[in-house]
Amino acid sequence: MASTEIDALSQALARLPGLGPRSARRAVLHLLKKREGALIPLLRALESVNERLATCSVCGNVDTRDPCSICSDPRRDDRSIAVVEDVADLWALERSRLFPGRFHVLGGRLSALDGVRPEDLTIDRLVTRISQGGVDEVVLAMNATLEGQTTAHYIADRLENFPIRLTQLAHGLPVGGELDYLDDGTLAQALRARRPVS
Amino acid sequence: MASTEIDALSQALARLPGLGPRSARRAVLHLLKKREGALIPLLRALESVNERLATCSVCGNVDTRDPCSICSDPRRDDRSIAVVEDVADLWALERSRLFPGRFHVLGGRLSALDGVRPEDLTIDRLVTRISQGGVDEVVLAMNATLEGQTTAHYIADRLENFPIRLTQLAHGLPVGGELDYLDDGTLAQALRARRPVS
Ligand SMILES: [Zn+2]
Ligand SMILES: [Zn+2]
Repeated sequence: MASTEIDALSQALARLPGLGPRSARRAVLHLLKKREGALIPLLRALESVNERLATCSVCGNVDTRDPCSICSDPRRDDRSIAVVEDVADLWALERSRLFPGRFHVLGGRLSALDGVRPEDLTIDRLVTRISQGGVDEVVLAMNATLEGQTTAHYIADRLENFPIRLTQLAHGLPVGGELDYLDDGTLAQALRARRPVS
Repeated sequence: MASTEIDALSQALARLPGLGPRSARRAVLHLLKKREGALIPLLRALESVNERLATCSVCGNVDTRDPCSICSDPRRDDRSIAVVEDVADLWALERSRLFPGRFHVLGGRLSALDGVRPEDLTIDRLVTRISQGGVDEVVLAMNATLEGQTTAHYIADRLENFPIRLTQLAHGLPVGGELDYLDDGTLAQALRARRPVS
């Protein structure tokens, strides 16, 4: 139907989550027809993200700077750290605009099934951050899944001897629910009603 | 939530048809996390399309070469031309793999409401193509909308003195239906049952 280059673009778009072959085709047509208004802005945005893309050496967020925008924002509260499984969960919490502190991205959750062990996550780095002092509260913001909760318990154990308040998101979360799929209201409620880890 | 660059990427993606803000966010995260596997391939595909993007000076298709892949394919049948409103319709017909000829893209349809007149479309260029000879059949493959059919009638009038067979897609198309949204089966049937313009 079209040239190799256009096919390649169609395929690259079709591999994005939420876009199938049909919507990728429509997106390609849109890009071809709106070169100045759509293709070039997308190209420039990708170039500039690609040039600067970095994983934050403090919290594990992905951003175009290291330390990331959140870690280098002087208005954020250093005394509170929310621990999340994944960057998607960090973004979900940021969208709620209710958490004023810093973050720590684990890079996954403990899983016997998938063979994910504590050393595969950034748990040691979290312990180091806490041991350096200045943190009053650690919010365990894991997903309300079995593996998320196992991970939260494991981290709670690792942090129990530090003079910090250890809290977790209130279980208003639907069982099996993933943070990134929640509506903002549910997420906000769960954050406001966070409670000490028992 | 994130840096200016990441926001810009998110917004550029959210403006694509079929992607809202939420799916754009998920797509951005995917790109950030799969730099080698997703971000760079998409960037390279956009670069190479952007460098070569051209509107075919023969048929009006958009491609990475001029004449386009279809116009420069020696296996296509020069004697048959399908006239379509838009590049999306050309692509839809190509997907059906049933039309072996060449194309002519009008760049829209006549519309009193939107102020689209014959001189705003590539109708004169179509007449020139036909007048150069070698064409036996012109398939009017307009959408089955009022404006599409008005456009087909207008073109039929303009071409009536040429020694060609003038056909149009069979009206198995649902009324109001747009080619680009049809399933391939319906489109194939309409193409096979195309009939002379009365
Ligand atoms: Zn950071
Ligand atoms: Zn062409």
